[in-house]
Amino acid sequence: MVYYYCTVNFENDLILRAANGENVERVPVWLMRQAGRILPEYRAVRASLSGFKELVETPELAAEVTIQPVDLLGVDAAIIFSDILVIPDAMGLPYRMEKGVGPIFDTTIKSASDILKLKIADPYFDLKYVTDAISITKKELNGRVPLIGFAGAPWTIFSYMIEGKGSKTFSEARKFLYQEPEAAHDLLQKITDSTIVYLKAQIEAGADMVQLFDSWAGILPKVHYLEFGLNYLRQICDAVNEVPITVFAKGAWFAIEEIGRLNCNTIGLDWHTSSEMARRLIGKEKTLQGNLDPCLLYASNEELVLETKSMLNNFGGQKHIANLGHGVYPDTNPEKVKLFINTIKEHKF
Amino acid sequence: MVYYYCTVNFENDLILRAANGENVERVPVWLMRQAGRILPEYRAVRASLSGFKELVETPELAAEVTIQPVDLLGVDAAIIFSDILVIPDAMGLPYRMEKGVGPIFDTTIKSASDILKLKIADPYFDLKYVTDAISITKKELNGRVPLIGFAGAPWTIFSYMIEGKGSKTFSEARKFLYQEPEAAHDLLQKITDSTIVYLKAQIEAGADMVQLFDSWAGILPKVHYLEFGLNYLRQICDAVNEVPITVFAKGAWFAIEEIGRLNCNTIGLDWHTSSEMARRLIGKEKTLQGNLDPCLLYASNEELVLETKSMLNNFGGQKHIANLGHGVYPDTNPEKVKLFINTIKEHKF
Repeated sequence: MVYYYCTVNFENDLILRAANGENVERVPVWLMRQAGRILPEYRAVRASLSGFKELVETPELAAEVTIQPVDLLGVDAAIIFSDILVIPDAMGLPYRMEKGVGPIFDTTIKSASDILKLKIADPYFDLKYVTDAISITKKELNGRVPLIGFAGAPWTIFSYMIEGKGSKTFSEARKFLYQEPEAAHDLLQKITDSTIVYLKAQIEAGADMVQLFDSWAGILPKVHYLEFGLNYLRQICDAVNEVPITVFAKGAWFAIEEIGRLNCNTIGLDWHTSSEMARRLIGKEKTLQGNLDPCLLYASNEELVLETKSMLNNFGGQKHIANLGHGVYPDTNPEKVKLFINTIKEHKF
Repeated sequence: MVYYYCTVNFENDLILRAANGENVERVPVWLMRQAGRILPEYRAVRASLSGFKELVETPELAAEVTIQPVDLLGVDAAIIFSDILVIPDAMGLPYRMEKGVGPIFDTTIKSASDILKLKIADPYFDLKYVTDAISITKKELNGRVPLIGFAGAPWTIFSYMIEGKGSKTFSEARKFLYQEPEAAHDLLQKITDSTIVYLKAQIEAGADMVQLFDSWAGILPKVHYLEFGLNYLRQICDAVNEVPITVFAKGAWFAIEEIGRLNCNTIGLDWHTSSEMARRLIGKEKTLQGNLDPCLLYASNEELVLETKSMLNNFGGQKHIANLGHGVYPDTNPEKVKLFINTIKEHKF
């Protein structure tokens, strides 16, 4: 683990200090999917466009919706508005977003020869819209809070490229691991190589920390997760050491000890993994991020405040970045999100 | 736990003896979803009909496809061909099966007054097509192997009734637990009461053992699973004591100790829970069922045999019912299923 010292003077650098394991005067907070449908101001921007991808690919607008939750909700970090699937897109496998369905790949990866045709993403060319959005955001944030960059974990990206869409079982992607293990490794390596240069380009453009989202980690048997998931996360964590890095492997409770040994600063937790279990299995060194049940934002104010305080007390106030255990759900009332954030900001241990 | 003595002379009662914790000369095996799309003979029956529900509701045909895997695959038990959603249907909330989508409820439960309108299912009237299918199946099986009856667990049935369809997050159902906890308990109680009489009617009609499927257990935080999930499973396990009962709560690793204390004979395991972890947390008394990764049926014969034998050895040969860790996926080659089954039958410990 490398410790990072800020060269920018942030007005609020709580999250960077927490990620670095330094003592903080209060727990920093942000929400996965904070830039998005929960905000009417986001929906207003989105309504003027042809679709989700147009927003992702228009740097000025992506920057605008990235900053909205900083202004409107008071979070301690911005996260660049983008999508994990820009990587397959940049590798030569385009996707489209279908209303009410989610991402669809009209062409999927079926064989080793399909993988040969894919290129390593060139972030300075194919993903310039992301690095431009980061540069604009950084300028407009003007040091108020740090900016988080992100990418999908290779296994999760792989799943979409094989399956072609979301799935309850991802049985096509999982079949490929059993039937074509060498080709699977080739594809995972190409995704990993693309992700490393992509994250480095994000950092160059101004991302102050980065997060890897392994959304479908929980579907793999442990032995497969270690082989096809964790090995590639490890390569990325070892290669990207310019800024603090967070790994969020949703549902991968069975591999938490191994995840805890990655060369990263922060481990994101879903709402099933208690702070006690995480500390016991990960040890004392890493910062933990999470993990309120996102559905608690549907509860009464009293219950939400009580459970938020309980979460804070369980994590103990240091080496903790407060967040939900999953992305905030689109129909969440922004007032509840503000209550969650303000409860964290005002909490006395 | 109650021990059951067979009054029928089965040609093969391995699974009943294993469920009762008696010593067996070899490990019994069946597969969740064995009666279904993996078999061309099933697809032939299904093709002659208007839809899935017609098959569920036609006792002679449901019996026919129930027996197919006994004849064609050589499993040690039949499981009645039906659907967990017959319960909401019988309570007054109909569903339809949409091709490529799954079950859809055109009307969902939105409030306490919607719950008042629901009735307790009358299995002798509303679900006679299931008990008739069981009677026919029992007659046609003629003691070759035992017949398993089943129902959905109340939390899983509740999720569908609120959400109206499958979901990645079941956030509507989860929201209801936070916003209307009393109404949620009322609905779960109505489902539970319906399920108890339904399972008793299945047993009366000839089911030799029953299984509860809690497909969405893994989505709930532990505290909610204990309150809204386990409490109702417990009522069912305490009320249904005529035959051995199996509880399969997919993804509920965080509550496995509590599940292990239910008044049931067998605990079904998904592919994430190792035999070692299950035995350590559940203790020695219960029989364990599972838990090969269903995607191993896509692997080479060599790998499938190796991993099947490894699973058998890990469970140790007694108090074990071999199965997959999830329902068999529809595109699985029946030859692989046969290899899985035959490997289990021929294994020497």
